[in-house]
Amino acid sequence: MNRHVPIDQVEIRDAFFAPRIANARHTAIPYMWDTLHDAVPGVAPSHCIENFRIAAGLAEGEFQGFWFQDSDLWKWLEGVGYALSVQRDEALEAQADSAIDLAAMAQQEDGYLDTYYIIKGLDQRFTNLKDIHELYVAGHMFEAACAYYQATGKRKVLDVACRFADCLCENFGPGENQLHGYPGHEEVEMGLTRLYAVTGEKKYLELALYFLNERGQKPYYYDKERLSRGEKLHEKRENFWDDYGYYQADVPVREQTVARGHAVRQLYLLAGMVETGAAAGDDSLVEAAERVYQNIVQKQMYITGGVGSTHVGEAFSFDYDLPPDRCYTETCASIALIMTAIRLHRAHPHGKYGDIVEKALYNGILSGVSLDGKKYFYMNPLETWPERCERRNDIRIDDERKGWFGCACCPPNVLRTLTGLSMYLYTENEEYLYVDQYVSSVVEAGDTKLLVESKFPWQGEVKIRVEKAGSKKLALRIPGWAKDYTFSINGEEMDHDAWNGYEFAGQVQDGDVIELVFPMEVKKMRSHAHIPEYAGKVALMMGPVVYCLEEKDNGDELWNLSLSDGPIAPEFREELLGGVTILTAEGVRESTSDALYSEEETKQEKQPLTFVPYYAWGNRGKGEMRVWIRKA
Amino acid sequence: MNRHVPIDQVEIRDAFFAPRIANARHTAIPYMWDTLHDAVPGVAPSHCIENFRIAAGLAEGEFQGFWFQDSDLWKWLEGVGYALSVQRDEALEAQADSAIDLAAMAQQEDGYLDTYYIIKGLDQRFTNLKDIHELYVAGHMFEAACAYYQATGKRKVLDVACRFADCLCENFGPGENQLHGYPGHEEVEMGLTRLYAVTGEKKYLELALYFLNERGQKPYYYDKERLSRGEKLHEKRENFWDDYGYYQADVPVREQTVARGHAVRQLYLLAGMVETGAAAGDDSLVEAAERVYQNIVQKQMYITGGVGSTHVGEAFSFDYDLPPDRCYTETCASIALIMTAIRLHRAHPHGKYGDIVEKALYNGILSGVSLDGKKYFYMNPLETWPERCERRNDIRIDDERKGWFGCACCPPNVLRTLTGLSMYLYTENEEYLYVDQYVSSVVEAGDTKLLVESKFPWQGEVKIRVEKAGSKKLALRIPGWAKDYTFSINGEEMDHDAWNGYEFAGQVQDGDVIELVFPMEVKKMRSHAHIPEYAGKVALMMGPVVYCLEEKDNGDELWNLSLSDGPIAPEFREELLGGVTILTAEGVRESTSDALYSEEETKQEKQPLTFVPYYAWGNRGKGEMRVWIRKA
Repeated sequence: MNRHVPIDQVEIRDAFFAPRIANARHTAIPYMWDTLHDAVPGVAPSHCIENFRIAAGLAEGEFQGFWFQDSDLWKWLEGVGYALSVQRDEALEAQADSAIDLAAMAQQEDGYLDTYYIIKGLDQRFTNLKDIHELYVAGHMFEAACAYYQATGKRKVLDVACRFADCLCENFGPGENQLHGYPGHEEVEMGLTRLYAVTGEKKYLELALYFLNERGQKPYYYDKERLSRGEKLHEKRENFWDDYGYYQADVPVREQTVARGHAVRQLYLLAGMVETGAAAGDDSLVEAAERVYQNIVQKQMYITGGVGSTHVGEAFSFDYDLPPDRCYTETCASIALIMTAIRLHRAHPHGKYGDIVEKALYNGILSGVSLDGKKYFYMNPLETWPERCERRNDIRIDDERKGWFGCACCPPNVLRTLTGLSMYLYTENEEYLYVDQYVSSVVEAGDTKLLVESKFPWQGEVKIRVEKAGSKKLALRIPGWAKDYTFSINGEEMDHDAWNGYEFAGQVQDGDVIELVFPMEVKKMRSHAHIPEYAGKVALMMGPVVYCLEEKDNGDELWNLSLSDGPIAPEFREELLGGVTILTAEGVRESTSDALYSEEETKQEKQPLTFVPYYAWGNRGKGEMRVWIRKA
Repeated sequence: MNRHVPIDQVEIRDAFFAPRIANARHTAIPYMWDTLHDAVPGVAPSHCIENFRIAAGLAEGEFQGFWFQDSDLWKWLEGVGYALSVQRDEALEAQADSAIDLAAMAQQEDGYLDTYYIIKGLDQRFTNLKDIHELYVAGHMFEAACAYYQATGKRKVLDVACRFADCLCENFGPGENQLHGYPGHEEVEMGLTRLYAVTGEKKYLELALYFLNERGQKPYYYDKERLSRGEKLHEKRENFWDDYGYYQADVPVREQTVARGHAVRQLYLLAGMVETGAAAGDDSLVEAAERVYQNIVQKQMYITGGVGSTHVGEAFSFDYDLPPDRCYTETCASIALIMTAIRLHRAHPHGKYGDIVEKALYNGILSGVSLDGKKYFYMNPLETWPERCERRNDIRIDDERKGWFGCACCPPNVLRTLTGLSMYLYTENEEYLYVDQYVSSVVEAGDTKLLVESKFPWQGEVKIRVEKAGSKKLALRIPGWAKDYTFSINGEEMDHDAWNGYEFAGQVQDGDVIELVFPMEVKKMRSHAHIPEYAGKVALMMGPVVYCLEEKDNGDELWNLSLSDGPIAPEFREELLGGVTILTAEGVRESTSDALYSEEETKQEKQPLTFVPYYAWGNRGKGEMRVWIRKA
């Protein structure tokens, strides 16, 4: 069974990621704690903790915020758990424990714990699984509980989680007196399976399987619960949210082949299918997830690892519909993409999954957070014209990162991804240790210990020093973008012999040094011919990093720029955007007459172009940005 | 005072327009009559006539359809009036008279006539001028009444109109017991001024002026009526329809400088300002309208004469925001654009107005109706990808013309434009006869009679035979696209001496022959540099006609085609699309690898390109279309 190396066995020393993780630890965690407590001036109150206080009987008032507001606390706690796995922290634990105590006080006799219905009326609970995210919130609670318990050994939150899970097992299942439903927003599947992994309690896994197996079966449960609430069924499904495909619940999950509907829902479903399928030994779930995942990465993913082509429903649209300026490409969706990719990798190891993890990490996820770690993008477009963002009503794109959101799913999701980053770096089983990402770190997997050093993503040289050879064989991912590379052990160059995207080192010895050199060449990427917006255009990449033009460096009307043939020069700029390699190249700026339309030929002038990493855009004030540029 | 030559003094013999007008006369008029009577199978019932029957007490039932449904009858009747001006028709008049009788029966004691409130409750009338289009409907009634009266000499509908106009004069105005409001959808200004022109009743003109002068004054009337209805005012205007700018009612009309809000409203306002201002001798209204009009044609108009860049609110957006695939470019808005242009021309004659009339007529208006005259586009995009039209929720573009619409404003608007086309062709005053458009026809203006012959828009030769020289001097428009042209009288070439876009012929004699030759060259048009979508692209025009690529002729993925340098050959094809000149040129098709993103260079293959006139697109089944094409 493949698993990630435990967090506390990985020490990240990476020049690129370590400061970002430190930011998450020292800036985002306290900042989010304050927002959960409505204590950040200028940020709309979250009401999250207040809801718990009301549910616990410590305060009076109405539930406020979204019906899934509890999940903000749980995602925060999950992120805290990972941070504490790396380093314990009494003050932080005291905060977390106080929140856990509060949640425990709010928990009902039978284990139920969702402040929305505790405050609004428990008679309504489980009556609208499709729209009200009780099971989604539960899933996040289970993940948080596992993370916090594993980090601290403190059982309280795990007990709270198990009591709620027991309550779900009581209420859901095939029994006559049980509900045969399943969540409208997937997440609980992962949570239950993880809770099973931590506690060994098999019924949690069975409930996860039950939810997956019931999903999309006819007659539809969502129809039934609608009728039970005394509502009519729709004759025509005019709105996307009336179409159960939006919830991936129109056909059974094993029959689904194409990504549809809400992007985060879709990907949490896939991640849950893989995790649960793998844990239950049901490969049909893994295979079905793989099918939909392949549809995404082959036909519905932006070059940045962004997914979700339309803001209407925050959703996938259809194959090759990937407009750069009308996408949703939610930060959470890219996170969900790597959650799925890493689970597929653990089910059937292959370097192609690491390619997607790497792509999303270095581009579409990191773009979601400002360099100072304080501001967030919900949406990550590949092209912006601020005037249009502000003035067109059919576009839902922010032209600046914001401090927080009413629906605050992305910030804590970034937090848990960064503090739990090491889970994406190494995979182990009895025989192998897979080095999945070249993030500088020290890793101990069983009796094997490595020191990995790289300057990714700016330089392609990787040095792996075998501190303790131990019993595991080493597998080293060859990134998909590295067509050419060298691989040597103790200075001896090895033949290329990659299999499933990995080079395998034979039995190594203590003190061995493995060196990999991946050429970090600048590449002019083309898109598939079926995407209208990118015809005749290229996007620059160097290694895993996607580049973009910003107004700040290149003036406005970026659309009038095109890239000339000729050399593209990388240059590392320590002082810029936290230290980035920029690309400079010769370009052309086209200009026209002042008439709206004119037969006059355009004027073309040379202009040097400066490209910066996409993830770093929007950190120097408002302005235009674009990833894809015409070729001169 | 400049005016159009009366309809019955113009006989259109044009190879291009005559069949279209015949279609309107013989297909659209009876078809619409049937739809107004809910008698077209497969077309959703309009309920328009039924509403009149209920209002007249001849039937029982509720009002159905939009609150402005009455206007469909009035626009139909206006179109019928123009058709009858050209040729009387007993059967058609019998139909029209029966509808007029019905309307007269529905008319209230005090002259009020709007079936919506007659059926819903007259106590509510005039309580929501902003949203319920009573005054808009009234305007269309007045225009229809004038047209039908002028065509037939039958006073009944004119009397109905005057009685309603009297009712409005009673209810609206500066008096203490009068309402100080103005319409949420402009139109009544034109209607009242026209009614004044036909009847000489000055109070109608005064009411039109009153509506224009009150518009946008503070405190806002729309706030007052909202409060009177017991509703609250918005603290924040979150939706476009809460912003009075959407109704051009946030500032007084003379202070408005930029086109905003609902496109048809904006342009009906401008047309009303010019018509009323000119009739009242108030040039400040004309000047204010000219300012906003110039903003439109210089910064907010598509190359096809389409206007309205966003479907959200069917509205203008902002300068240079002219996306080809997210526009609204409603057929009605282009019609309203030429209504404004022709009125500005009559206020201060200049050829530039005729350029816009010509552009919209040959492109963005005609594209709204199928070649057989039976199907309509509401929206006229410059680029379509059927899959996207069907599958993206943030796009509101039809990929096929429809038989009718629930909100059926465009079909009768096209009808009245075509049957009343001659009003756009000639302008006269005591001294001059302006030939504004070169549509083959015989025109008698006072004692001057001309025979105009051309093969516009396919050929640029125009021959004008002076049948009777009469007392008027001739002014001949030189289209803006004709940089070079020849102008001769009786074979003698004249020097170029155009002024305000017109060449003036001195005193001509009976039998004189004036010849104009405008070179119909193919031009590669560029757009202003501030429009992102057209950077690096060209649109082909020949004379006034804008061309497009269709999938039918060029295969799919039109975005992969680019236009090579080299000759572009026009060829008239009698059998194609009702007879069109197509353009053929050498092009290149780019293709890529099957990967979603790849560093592989694209393959380029030559491909001949076929362009067809934009107005004729979508007449050969579904498929992609695009106007702007990359240069290879």
